[in-house]
Amino acid sequence: MLTAQEKGKKPRTDDAEGEGGEPIDAALLVSIEKLQQIQDEIDKVNEEADNKVLEVEKKYSKIRRPVYIRRNEVIQKIPDFWLTTFLSHPTLGELLTEDDQKIFKHLESIDVVESEDTKLSCSITLTFSYNPYFEDKKLTKTYSMSDDGKISVKTTSIKWKEGMDIVNGKTCMRDGDKRLLVDDSFFTWFSDKNSSRLVYGEMDEVADIIKEELWPNPLKFFNNGSEDEFVEEEDEGSDEEEDQDGSGEEGGDN
Amino acid sequence: MLTAQEKGKKPRTDDAEGEGGEPIDAALLVSIEKLQQIQDEIDKVNEEADNKVLEVEKKYSKIRRPVYIRRNEVIQKIPDFWLTTFLSHPTLGELLTEDDQKIFKHLESIDVVESEDTKLSCSITLTFSYNPYFEDKKLTKTYSMSDDGKISVKTTSIKWKEGMDIVNGKTCMRDGDKRLLVDDSFFTWFSDKNSSRLVYGEMDEVADIIKEELWPNPLKFFNNGSEDEFVEEEDEGSDEEEDQDGSGEEGGDN
Repeated sequence: MLTAQEKGKKPRTDDAEGEGGEPIDAALLVSIEKLQQIQDEIDKVNEEADNKVLEVEKKYSKIRRPVYIRRNEVIQKIPDFWLTTFLSHPTLGELLTEDDQKIFKHLESIDVVESEDTKLSCSITLTFSYNPYFEDKKLTKTYSMSDDGKISVKTTSIKWKEGMDIVNGKTCMRDGDKRLLVDDSFFTWFSDKNSSRLVYGEMDEVADIIKEELWPNPLKFFNNGSEDEFVEEEDEGSDEEEDQDGSGEEGGDN
Repeated sequence: MLTAQEKGKKPRTDDAEGEGGEPIDAALLVSIEKLQQIQDEIDKVNEEADNKVLEVEKKYSKIRRPVYIRRNEVIQKIPDFWLTTFLSHPTLGELLTEDDQKIFKHLESIDVVESEDTKLSCSITLTFSYNPYFEDKKLTKTYSMSDDGKISVKTTSIKWKEGMDIVNGKTCMRDGDKRLLVDDSFFTWFSDKNSSRLVYGEMDEVADIIKEELWPNPLKFFNNGSEDEFVEEEDEGSDEEEDQDGSGEEGGDN
């Protein structure tokens, strides 16, 4: 790693001006050192701001918690709520294989909980009714961020019933069926504990969508699905109108 | 648009159970209405939380302001600071054409200011020394968000000197040179006021990178550029090592 000082030793000198007759490199060196000090100051203010924002978020997370619990009780009365909601989401819908959908028929509730202690820790818990696929009632995937921003991932190790393990491909050859579900099943995502591809401080896309889109307002997607079915034709028409218009009035909702 | 009630009239009935002998549709209808009420409650809490976060951000924005002004004074003493910084950023570097780079030689300072009044309003101002390309000393691009999340964009209309307008392609055929810069020049981005492609509540990618990456810590990219030049060979070696390792210890820094 080069320090700011080392960087200062190789400036572009063509239109640079030294200060007070000092050698050009020394003047530049001083400026870059000063800049680094100011940057450190800004970083400190940003850290303080981040902590204050986190405080606010934790406070409201506590306020939301009992409301989410009440919401889950109501959702359980709506048949296939989470299956419909997942299928209606443009990205999550793509992720659910046929097998996933059969398993999601047994998904009773979802819970997303942000931890109070660490800077960013989020667990997603899926609760299932008795089902022919695995023994577990609850499956939990947790993302924890260490102080340096590194994310680590823990998941329940699913106890698949015999011949039902769709993640590790053990059912793939049954009945001559060659489907390989390893890359694109919800349960492959769920079982993936590898955090090496994660950007510092960020969860993967699926976890992020569940936490930031599905969990805050699942009804939006649940309702969306049926809208699409009904109004597909009109939608196409109005899209074309908007394109021709080009007045900058429409927003990208996709 | 279908309301939650209408949605409630077409449930999947295969494994749904009515409550207390009520017709199945009515029970479902009640649940979805309840769910909508709870969702409204959550939305209200979220709005309050957003406002509180905004308050904190505004407070720290005020604290940062004088530090940014001091930073700009120091940056002006470092030759080609912003040109080097832009070129060292993976996305912005791609955007700068040869002509852009010549113009950026005259870029004295950048300023990014978030407005106090509206929920999201951000202006990016570039200050240039006297140059052969345009008359303007300051070019400002402003993104303002209305209450419903719609973004509108205003920009300084650049007063190009004769034969220098690279945005509208007027120089393209000079000397038989057919370069068409319309799609990929920094100044094409700057001059683009069309907000129809913008997602509600979000600025475009270039504005977002300038505001969220370049402005908070330009030194990171300024230093990065020279690191790449110096340690390219070692870098390649260590990349391969990391790939072979696969222990999940490395983070995605890109």
